[in-house]
Amino acid sequence: MFPKDFAALGIHCGIKKENKKKDLALFYSEYPCKASVLSTSNIVKAAPVLLNNKAVKENKNAFRAVIVNSGCANACTGKHGMQDAMEMCKLVADGLKLKQKEVLVASTGVIGAFLPMKKVKKGIETITDRIQKSHNEISAVQAIMTTDTKRKISSRKVSIGGKNVVIWGCAKGSGMIHPDLIPHATMISAVLTDANISKECLKDVFSRAVNNSFNCVTVDGDTSTNDTAIILANGRAGNKVIKAKNNSFNKFGKALNEVCVELAKMIARDGEGATKLVEVEVRGCKSPGSAKKVASVIATSPLVKTAIFGCDANWGRILAACGRSDVDFNPEKIAIYIGNKLIFHKGMPAKYSESKLKGILKKKNVKITVDLNQGDHSAKYFTCDFSFDYIKINASYRS
Amino acid sequence: MFPKDFAALGIHCGIKKENKKKDLALFYSEYPCKASVLSTSNIVKAAPVLLNNKAVKENKNAFRAVIVNSGCANACTGKHGMQDAMEMCKLVADGLKLKQKEVLVASTGVIGAFLPMKKVKKGIETITDRIQKSHNEISAVQAIMTTDTKRKISSRKVSIGGKNVVIWGCAKGSGMIHPDLIPHATMISAVLTDANISKECLKDVFSRAVNNSFNCVTVDGDTSTNDTAIILANGRAGNKVIKAKNNSFNKFGKALNEVCVELAKMIARDGEGATKLVEVEVRGCKSPGSAKKVASVIATSPLVKTAIFGCDANWGRILAACGRSDVDFNPEKIAIYIGNKLIFHKGMPAKYSESKLKGILKKKNVKITVDLNQGDHSAKYFTCDFSFDYIKINASYRS
Repeated sequence: MFPKDFAALGIHCGIKKENKKKDLALFYSEYPCKASVLSTSNIVKAAPVLLNNKAVKENKNAFRAVIVNSGCANACTGKHGMQDAMEMCKLVADGLKLKQKEVLVASTGVIGAFLPMKKVKKGIETITDRIQKSHNEISAVQAIMTTDTKRKISSRKVSIGGKNVVIWGCAKGSGMIHPDLIPHATMISAVLTDANISKECLKDVFSRAVNNSFNCVTVDGDTSTNDTAIILANGRAGNKVIKAKNNSFNKFGKALNEVCVELAKMIARDGEGATKLVEVEVRGCKSPGSAKKVASVIATSPLVKTAIFGCDANWGRILAACGRSDVDFNPEKIAIYIGNKLIFHKGMPAKYSESKLKGILKKKNVKITVDLNQGDHSAKYFTCDFSFDYIKINASYRS
Repeated sequence: MFPKDFAALGIHCGIKKENKKKDLALFYSEYPCKASVLSTSNIVKAAPVLLNNKAVKENKNAFRAVIVNSGCANACTGKHGMQDAMEMCKLVADGLKLKQKEVLVASTGVIGAFLPMKKVKKGIETITDRIQKSHNEISAVQAIMTTDTKRKISSRKVSIGGKNVVIWGCAKGSGMIHPDLIPHATMISAVLTDANISKECLKDVFSRAVNNSFNCVTVDGDTSTNDTAIILANGRAGNKVIKAKNNSFNKFGKALNEVCVELAKMIARDGEGATKLVEVEVRGCKSPGSAKKVASVIATSPLVKTAIFGCDANWGRILAACGRSDVDFNPEKIAIYIGNKLIFHKGMPAKYSESKLKGILKKKNVKITVDLNQGDHSAKYFTCDFSFDYIKINASYRS
């Protein structure tokens, strides 16, 4: 399932040291697209992030392509890096006969290294030539991966006003994952849709979806310099334009939300060294913000994450994490569940079977629920456990 | 070197499963002491923490003993736990013929388990009897250890008004270390001194020392439910009472600060699974608070800590951590050093030798310095690297 009149392709151009590993991806629309771009809130922003922020301000309505490389983040590379990012856009524009401002760019990989521009130039010449003849979205998804072990693709088809609208999204990300995407995350996601939708509605619906998904996923608590989520909508499904918060808006929004949440869960499940997907739900809070804060602290706690790796129902660590979240609550009123088992309430451990809990914790998907019992708001966070492989991967990433 | 008229002792009473591992420590003064107690800011506070907070309010000037157990944190244990903590104080008072309110208490170990009070009772009867005949501070320090691999003791002798004043301190702590001690950290520290000092001056000087030491140490970013730092001053050195911010105050304060910083560094160096002590200094900041914030985020970043374990000069991770600290700065102006080598400045990597850096990173003590170049304030944080053993220790802590 792929949206109409889009193409995607990935190739190996030589940025990655490993022979033949794909490292350059191109997403291309035959028609101009509305776009919404969300990027990292980290003060240190990679060159491509700064460039996209500028492009989105200057070019209102007519994006055609996104070029993405892996293996080098082009971050902390100064003016030189900014020139390289611009050069990437220019080369794509040249190859596809577009204007430079119609091209967006994203990079992921090692921070502080320069792109090998000779290889990148040759790569872009090749990929822009090939994409006009052939399309292979799997190769594109492979080409944006770094320490990812699995491809992350999600899609939905919805009928809007009698027309089939397709939403297709892909993402990469395994480490330095704690995106905090703001309008204008080393998680990168490209979502393509043939929906006909106004720019304002696209921006609105994508922001909501990103807040429920990429902005609720953590692997290590480290927010990247390169996080980027891009949606392109080329309108080719032919549905009546979505330009108000009506049924069509809601239907499209729901499907887009599902795609983004599915991708976010895939990122958490494939976190560096992860053996489990952990879903943390915090409910009974006074505000959505406080629920998200508590969920985020639990989801990033190394002690919680190592206990889950060890299948150890060490709820004291969960409770201690809640207590350092800066959210006020009454420890006598909090309830903690692992899976569907109540394990702490009324300021005391509940009665539960350690062996049953061990069984729940041995599964590939673990759910932790915390109820502060002080309000009606809730939030979910997606994370993973902390394993020996996490250390292995990260003690030798650059070597 | 031990302060006058204090005694300390540690025994095995049976809280720890491992046979004969010491788990009960008593610190005792033959004379009434001024005291200052700082304890965790975690909303979830263990019973002994709550009890000490109460005792410090009610008893102004006359503390005589601190009882500490390891192997069980007596946290999240409700009213039952509070009764056990009170019982511990009462048993010590009985054994030493003190008033119950003259006894402080601290616990460390697994959260959510009840103390085996039968064993504890017998233990306290034994230890209060023995301490009146014999003193062995090493055994006391051993008895407060949990996952610690090394004893943490520091002492200083200073001459104040012609009298020798001794400050002796010990600490434990290896995991769930990110103390945020506030007046009234599973880091526990007991500092004993025979200085003659007013309660107000003791409180003031101990707060400063703790803020420069225990409140600047992190292993995993997890603030414990049990963190406690206690200082007792019995005045037996016979110096003229320190009751104003004069030379004597400064001299005593400097020595106390040295003791606490030495203990804090020992905690970081002995962090769970640690192979290195990492000192993070952030300078050139607009305020001490912003300096501490940036230092704290670098010191807790799993990506920075795993890179250091791997002796990988991955400064991009340091810079990314700065960028997510919520402290505003100009990435073009920041400078980063590893050891004494400049590795990043002017928005770009500096020229340095990877092999020389590798040599610096292979040492047991690693220093990271970040200069924001925007002001005159600085802060230091003490942390350690993240190793395979960290995962090993924490995936199986309760089992």
